[in-house]
Amino acid sequence: MDDGVAGPVQDARQYAELPAHMRLYRGGELSGGRIAFETWGRLSSQRDNAILLFTGLSPAAHAASSTADPRDGWWEAMLGPGLAIDTDRYFVICINSLGGCFGSSGPASIDPGTGERWGVRFPEVAVEDIARGGFEVLRHLRIRQLAAVIGPSLGGMVVLSFVAQYPDVARRLVCISGTAAAAPVAIALRSVQREAILRDPQWKGGNYHPDEPPRTGMRLARKLGTVTYRSAAEWNQRFGREPLAASRVTALPGGFSPHFAIEGYLESQAERFVRSFDANSYLYLSRAMDRFELLEHGPSLAAIFARAQLEAALVIGVESDFLFAIGEQATVAAGLETAGVPTTFARLASVEGHDAFLVDIASFDPAIRRFLAAN
Amino acid sequence: MDDGVAGPVQDARQYAELPAHMRLYRGGELSGGRIAFETWGRLSSQRDNAILLFTGLSPAAHAASSTADPRDGWWEAMLGPGLAIDTDRYFVICINSLGGCFGSSGPASIDPGTGERWGVRFPEVAVEDIARGGFEVLRHLRIRQLAAVIGPSLGGMVVLSFVAQYPDVARRLVCISGTAAAAPVAIALRSVQREAILRDPQWKGGNYHPDEPPRTGMRLARKLGTVTYRSAAEWNQRFGREPLAASRVTALPGGFSPHFAIEGYLESQAERFVRSFDANSYLYLSRAMDRFELLEHGPSLAAIFARAQLEAALVIGVESDFLFAIGEQATVAAGLETAGVPTTFARLASVEGHDAFLVDIASFDPAIRRFLAAN
Repeated sequence: MDDGVAGPVQDARQYAELPAHMRLYRGGELSGGRIAFETWGRLSSQRDNAILLFTGLSPAAHAASSTADPRDGWWEAMLGPGLAIDTDRYFVICINSLGGCFGSSGPASIDPGTGERWGVRFPEVAVEDIARGGFEVLRHLRIRQLAAVIGPSLGGMVVLSFVAQYPDVARRLVCISGTAAAAPVAIALRSVQREAILRDPQWKGGNYHPDEPPRTGMRLARKLGTVTYRSAAEWNQRFGREPLAASRVTALPGGFSPHFAIEGYLESQAERFVRSFDANSYLYLSRAMDRFELLEHGPSLAAIFARAQLEAALVIGVESDFLFAIGEQATVAAGLETAGVPTTFARLASVEGHDAFLVDIASFDPAIRRFLAAN
Repeated sequence: MDDGVAGPVQDARQYAELPAHMRLYRGGELSGGRIAFETWGRLSSQRDNAILLFTGLSPAAHAASSTADPRDGWWEAMLGPGLAIDTDRYFVICINSLGGCFGSSGPASIDPGTGERWGVRFPEVAVEDIARGGFEVLRHLRIRQLAAVIGPSLGGMVVLSFVAQYPDVARRLVCISGTAAAAPVAIALRSVQREAILRDPQWKGGNYHPDEPPRTGMRLARKLGTVTYRSAAEWNQRFGREPLAASRVTALPGGFSPHFAIEGYLESQAERFVRSFDANSYLYLSRAMDRFELLEHGPSLAAIFARAQLEAALVIGVESDFLFAIGEQATVAAGLETAGVPTTFARLASVEGHDAFLVDIASFDPAIRRFLAAN
């Protein structure tokens, strides 16, 4: 997925304090935590036009540009005046995940109890806690009901968790390339990514200096992520067996330097990620994705969704998604239908795999636009 | 793919010397090289019943048990008296790839010029050189014509290269889960695997001691390989979200120990591989797979195959293969057909992905048996 956007230049972030001592879903306790978020549009006088947006693993709350921060956001083409998520109509709140590294409390932030970086002393974060972070932002903003809760990828897990935990808050649900529980192939790949970081000597038990992160582990994790976020068909179209331009060849010893253009692409993705994302945050959010199991909240998906009091739901899946297979979205959609929720299941043929929601705006825009306009 | 089998207990290996100074396909020169092989069955008096078998990346020449070495081989169920590759009828020769580490010359073997391990001073090995190794074994055995040349995975590349380089030797071709040129997704994954090894401090520029290999890099490479050799559907069936038995949990720091059964499976695969395979060999053969391009041998696949004077061909592909996609086998089969070679294209629905040839014997046995019996 695309990198988060962060930097000291401009900043549209706002913050909501979490309860002073917050019990987390897997049993730990977080003291003095906070959630970073950004907003677009205006809250109506009835306070009934808010959309809560959760992100994938790596983006910040900066989903789109604004006066306060004119840089492009991670969903720039989807969120704004007149766009599919229309900020002329909706007050949109995007949440930086608890455990992340773009303003919300996480292993890279300072433990107010010690004045030092949390590192791996930060309590285990579950998908449920990320949903809770969004809920606490709503409380902070004195918003009791949502026009919709929307999330792609990890965010697609978070929105399911959100409606399970706060059944009377969201009127509508948009779950994009998410799942009610990660498949073993996704678990296996994330396990390898985490191990690459954990076994990098520079990880130092999680106590690396921010300027000396476990670069090798992060590079490997991101390269592997990049391969699996897209699809074989897209790589065929974009790169084929095109050789890497000589000027872009990074020397590696023993005659094993990159040779093909796709290797150069992985390289640029990896370098960008190492500069922008915290390794411990990566470990925390990756583990949260593996362990998420919506069925912990009820005997069946239908029972969970029936309790959620949704007026309508949109489930979007992509046929070429290798990490969150289309069948997983079909399972979510079927659970919603069984629960009696009017559900649209958009099965998209995008070639961009799991990342399609960031790229194939031509397919995602009408699906989301139609749903939000009709309901 | 399944690990190679090697050990000092018993040994059925024979050796063929390579030419004293052998020019390799990518320009290097190998002095004092040799190829390890094993054989089953008896060569007919006309010397016309030989089958040459190439392997995937990691197996040894020990494809099946024999009196000289009764341990199970990597294709035990497929090769033997009365089996699909019938050693009552055929004289079968299995080749340990040049660059490998089970008897043939490679980076782990001793450079006779210096008395030291080659390491990365070993010249670059191409798929063409592995094919050449098989050809030199035939010369050693004074065999001028083959009843068939057979190979799965990397071996499926080698057999294509073999018929391109030695057009009058093999009467029949069996190409299993191979390709005429690796797809970018496979290149990307192998690139990440190689980088995991190359950046492991224990790799030491390729000069690690055999007892202190780059374990972390090899473990990561093998785990990633294991994920991609099978299919998401198989992992769903075999493991689902089953937790890892507590006794099998390997502690990792920071609360990031394996949690799911599939992680334990990756762990056992990785440990077995680190013990049995040489890291530099892995790098060499992995690079050879990326760079293989059959079209270097002619203007079109059809032109290459037309020159090869094949009497018949069998191409087998597996629909769930993520690394060597079914479309790549279809391309090979189409090239053969255009060349006028009577071709059977077996498109198998096995759930085991790229590794199916090792596991789904119920599908592979009849396909290969029928082809060899009918032609």
